[in-house]
Amino acid sequence: MSLDAIDTPAVLIDLTRAEANLARAQAYADQHGLRLRPHIKTHKLPRFAKKQMDLGAVGITAQKLGEAEAMAAAGLTDILITYNILGGAKLARLATLHQKVTVSVCADSSATIAGYATTFADPAHPLNVLVECDTGAGRCGVQRPEQALALARQIAAAPGLHFSGLMTYPPQKDLEQVDRWLITARDLMTAQGLPSPVISTGGSPALYRAHQVTAATEHRPGTYIYADRMQVAAGLCGWEDCALTVLATVVSRPTETRAVIDAGSKALSSDLYGLTGHGRLTAYPDAVITSLSEEHAVIDLAACTTRPAIGERVQIIPNHACVVTNLFNQVHLTQSGALVAIDPVTSRGAMT
Amino acid sequence: MSLDAIDTPAVLIDLTRAEANLARAQAYADQHGLRLRPHIKTHKLPRFAKKQMDLGAVGITAQKLGEAEAMAAAGLTDILITYNILGGAKLARLATLHQKVTVSVCADSSATIAGYATTFADPAHPLNVLVECDTGAGRCGVQRPEQALALARQIAAAPGLHFSGLMTYPPQKDLEQVDRWLITARDLMTAQGLPSPVISTGGSPALYRAHQVTAATEHRPGTYIYADRMQVAAGLCGWEDCALTVLATVVSRPTETRAVIDAGSKALSSDLYGLTGHGRLTAYPDAVITSLSEEHAVIDLAACTTRPAIGERVQIIPNHACVVTNLFNQVHLTQSGALVAIDPVTSRGAMT
Repeated sequence: MSLDAIDTPAVLIDLTRAEANLARAQAYADQHGLRLRPHIKTHKLPRFAKKQMDLGAVGITAQKLGEAEAMAAAGLTDILITYNILGGAKLARLATLHQKVTVSVCADSSATIAGYATTFADPAHPLNVLVECDTGAGRCGVQRPEQALALARQIAAAPGLHFSGLMTYPPQKDLEQVDRWLITARDLMTAQGLPSPVISTGGSPALYRAHQVTAATEHRPGTYIYADRMQVAAGLCGWEDCALTVLATVVSRPTETRAVIDAGSKALSSDLYGLTGHGRLTAYPDAVITSLSEEHAVIDLAACTTRPAIGERVQIIPNHACVVTNLFNQVHLTQSGALVAIDPVTSRGAMT
Repeated sequence: MSLDAIDTPAVLIDLTRAEANLARAQAYADQHGLRLRPHIKTHKLPRFAKKQMDLGAVGITAQKLGEAEAMAAAGLTDILITYNILGGAKLARLATLHQKVTVSVCADSSATIAGYATTFADPAHPLNVLVECDTGAGRCGVQRPEQALALARQIAAAPGLHFSGLMTYPPQKDLEQVDRWLITARDLMTAQGLPSPVISTGGSPALYRAHQVTAATEHRPGTYIYADRMQVAAGLCGWEDCALTVLATVVSRPTETRAVIDAGSKALSSDLYGLTGHGRLTAYPDAVITSLSEEHAVIDLAACTTRPAIGERVQIIPNHACVVTNLFNQVHLTQSGALVAIDPVTSRGAMT
């Protein structure tokens, strides 16, 4: 089926590129003796989670319980949820999930662990819990190794919980400092009889430097499958590695230098991450997407030698691929310029 | 049903506030002899579209064909789609919609009108077409009144089309200049035998100044139903008018001054619109949402005298309400602090 049959705006995924990105990362991990536990929040597609497992991943990562449930329903069997899961409703769902698949969760507070300990009480089938550490990114996580030790003790003391190790979403720079933090915590806990079988780091920007965190046993990249404008800007890959594009139509050419397309912030998202412009037009690399409204993007063509006509279809590499797939109910999988499948984004809108 | 039963993150809509916002706007329009044609892209809920009609709106506005189809299916009968609709697939759907309800569309180019003229050929049941004018906002629209005249002539010459007038999404400042633009175009066309029965302006920021555009016959506000942080910042309303909040849970308190909640850019969107911070915590107005990742928001509590504990639920008034409802499959309608209904966001993800 031709791509011409796809109405716009739509997400296109180049299968060859996506699979090459997956294979490249797994080869890197294998070379360094690092396990990969890919984060499915980027694609939310069982197809790719299974592909990641086939290539050698040890399991997958999810950010939301709803994502994990969708992946378990699709046959994935080893899922780490990198989140503090709180509240009766979510803990009941977590208990159901724990009956079906191998599930690990995280905690950075005594309150979170207390919730797990109340819900999970079977020493024969304990819930795996990792302690989340703030190694410099300034989001969640304990601030000091001594706090990690205190939480590890609380986990180990709960009959239905199993202390599995440490988890961090590291700052993507200064990995040396991340490593020092994790080594200190690991050694402190090991000395207290609490070894860390898993030390899990994450992030695509630092993916190909992940081995510099020598304490890490596994890495959780997400965006690497598709790559995006942010990843290219960070020097992680080239434009030719970008597997996800938004297909859009030029709906207006109000002036010689202005084009407007039918993909706005509800298709591209307004994530900027310090970049100028809201995406790259593959066929017009000198064009600048200067502003987004909800259903329009305004494009400055002043620097372009050729310019698109009304009705012309263009492909945009978005700033941030992960938030784009979350805006669409389905994605179009392509190979060699032909449409090969349409996959529903299974856990899109799985907010809880 | 208590709000405690709603898991987070979730969208809450205060019905009393939303309906008061609708009534206030209709009263303003009535006072000034201006018709209202509310834009449903903000709420995407048949419930509120019907309420808007009951209050006196002359019809509704949609930005996407998919939104219009969902509203027509729910019983709305007069829909303006403020968009250049291009391509065989969309034109075929538009023709189907045109058989069911009164539909009007827009065009800012000869190419768009040519598509309409090819698809609609019945003089007994013509398609209403408005010419989109760029009165200073710099998005779509013809640049000069003479161009509007040329397009009006093209529409009038097509047997299956009916020239209905002018449409603009005006810049929200300098409405005097917008008025001059529209008056010039209107008078030019009237002198050529092409009167404009409809002159349609839009936008919530300029809603209560819409009568200053004396040429306008109707206004298309969207966000006014919910209001948001952007609208309060623009002085359009107060915090007590904000009807939409995102309910979230504090999942981490890594430091004395930092809280992290379970609503990130996939729940709040990253729309900033020049504001500092990503939303306002109703119970902690001095808190600053300093950064968003996909499923977390990091909050600086340094300026707060009281601070939330882990597990506490907070409500956030987002920067921009329209993009938030588009991220959720459903919204929770509340009244006097109780849950009264859960409505699916019917055309969420209706990308085309």
